[in-house]
Amino acid sequence: MSIEILPDLLGVFFFAVSGCLLAARKNFDLVGSLLLGSLVSLGGGVVRDLVIGQLPAAFSNPLYLFPPLLATLLVFFLYSGVEKTKGLLTVFDAAGLALFCITGTVKALDAGLNPVASALLGVTTAVGGGLLRDVVANEVPQLFNRHDIYAMPAFLGSALAAVCYLTGILNLSTGLAIAVVVFAFRLLAWRFRWHAPLAVWRRKA
Amino acid sequence: MSIEILPDLLGVFFFAVSGCLLAARKNFDLVGSLLLGSLVSLGGGVVRDLVIGQLPAAFSNPLYLFPPLLATLLVFFLYSGVEKTKGLLTVFDAAGLALFCITGTVKALDAGLNPVASALLGVTTAVGGGLLRDVVANEVPQLFNRHDIYAMPAFLGSALAAVCYLTGILNLSTGLAIAVVVFAFRLLAWRFRWHAPLAVWRRKA
Amino acid sequence: MSIEILPDLLGVFFFAVSGCLLAARKNFDLVGSLLLGSLVSLGGGVVRDLVIGQLPAAFSNPLYLFPPLLATLLVFFLYSGVEKTKGLLTVFDAAGLALFCITGTVKALDAGLNPVASALLGVTTAVGGGLLRDVVANEVPQLFNRHDIYAMPAFLGSALAAVCYLTGILNLSTGLAIAVVVFAFRLLAWRFRWHAPLAVWRRKA
Repeated sequence: MSIEILPDLLGVFFFAVSGCLLAARKNFDLVGSLLLGSLVSLGGGVVRDLVIGQLPAAFSNPLYLFPPLLATLLVFFLYSGVEKTKGLLTVFDAAGLALFCITGTVKALDAGLNPVASALLGVTTAVGGGLLRDVVANEVPQLFNRHDIYAMPAFLGSALAAVCYLTGILNLSTGLAIAVVVFAFRLLAWRFRWHAPLAVWRRKA
Repeated sequence: MSIEILPDLLGVFFFAVSGCLLAARKNFDLVGSLLLGSLVSLGGGVVRDLVIGQLPAAFSNPLYLFPPLLATLLVFFLYSGVEKTKGLLTVFDAAGLALFCITGTVKALDAGLNPVASALLGVTTAVGGGLLRDVVANEVPQLFNRHDIYAMPAFLGSALAAVCYLTGILNLSTGLAIAVVVFAFRLLAWRFRWHAPLAVWRRKA
Repeated sequence: MSIEILPDLLGVFFFAVSGCLLAARKNFDLVGSLLLGSLVSLGGGVVRDLVIGQLPAAFSNPLYLFPPLLATLLVFFLYSGVEKTKGLLTVFDAAGLALFCITGTVKALDAGLNPVASALLGVTTAVGGGLLRDVVANEVPQLFNRHDIYAMPAFLGSALAAVCYLTGILNLSTGLAIAVVVFAFRLLAWRFRWHAPLAVWRRKA
């Protein structure tokens, strides 16, 4: 199976919205919103494509430019309140995460990487954009928030995608099912503040 | 037209000075000044060359090492006051921006990328180094300062360079003219605090 | 001489421990510890391999995944106090630095880069991971601490490695000797607070 471009573009859009929402919360201007939206939505994929030795999709296919533009305009015209930003941002970020861990893994498998490396590259694609977004905007990366679980859903989704790909059962339905599981896992973890053990055993939190 | 190396080296020098001036303001030592100057001046070009699949110029051509060395020494011996740093830094940064958006676009077109992707890579080259500089030095990136316009001159310069390249009228004179326009646009925007609309419509600034 | 994988894996392990120790100090959770350990230990090498145009070792060779896993578990079970973190972190960081400046330089020379570029890529590999670690964890990068010397030992080690490689005397003994010199230089500089001149001449520190 070759990577379908639609889920990847959809993931780009979701991440772009999360970037533009952060730009709105931090009072950036319209150009900053476009740039932060582009960085978060295209940055992870650029790293992925460089690793597998391809011209990054963001630069080879002009279609990839529309989602960040659309996200910037949507946030500009529709956004109307500060209080809901964090929740909205997390929802869009989770949707991007759910799609990117799958498309990243599949693209790496298509390029001939071994399954373990492919799943890892999927995780890198999925968490990389959000990490860039938070570092550039000088926020503590969500990835390292110990009251939250962020990377584990991506690990799960990438592993499931690799297994389905290798057993030949990856198609639109199974892909969608994996994405829904990742999305739900991420949002439940956020809503109910699930957390992993700390980095050190027997330390009080 | 193949990329001429001189404007690229000159852009490297200007950005290197901006990095060394920031190092001076932040009280870094001499080695830190060299490293920050090198990162800002060579980082954007390394990303550009990786995207177009070439060995980065900074590593293939030893000539690229002289501008950061020169900038470090100049700032070490000539710099004498704190009060002027911000203005000087912005002037050198604007000069680097003006040259890099052109050389980055031309190098991408030479490598066979489509015009839109080439202009975007030019913008990435131009704003990338400064973004790295500010993130690494733990400053709020100039790129996202809402009281200022930073990326728009680079967009303009890259678009003009792509148009001139494709119509075959890009030469030293037209290239210089574009650089002057970008430089002037950036400095006027800074001096008179022009700004773009905020990321969200109808919010008070 | 082809690069031996063992010193590189050992360097990965040392840097991974430094990342997990920082995660412990910052109260990250276990997944954050694994991610920060992986980023610092594999990030520099990924950049190095991208520059020389190879599939990054971290993604092509599953062996590279064990050192970060091991480091995460060791820190989780054995770490027991906050007061010693900074010293321990610096010792492991110095050990990684000592190995990476050599393996990075040798890998670049093997790939056919010129000696100056190879030494610089060695320095980039050695200081890059630690820079990523500190930026992502929102710390002031050790690299720019003016009360400390960080990059100079890496410059020295990379230059020595390049000279030994080109004169054909680089083997396990000479490589080990260089690593010991770099390690000792770095730790002595840290212990006795050696420092370089500031970025600006005649300014009071």
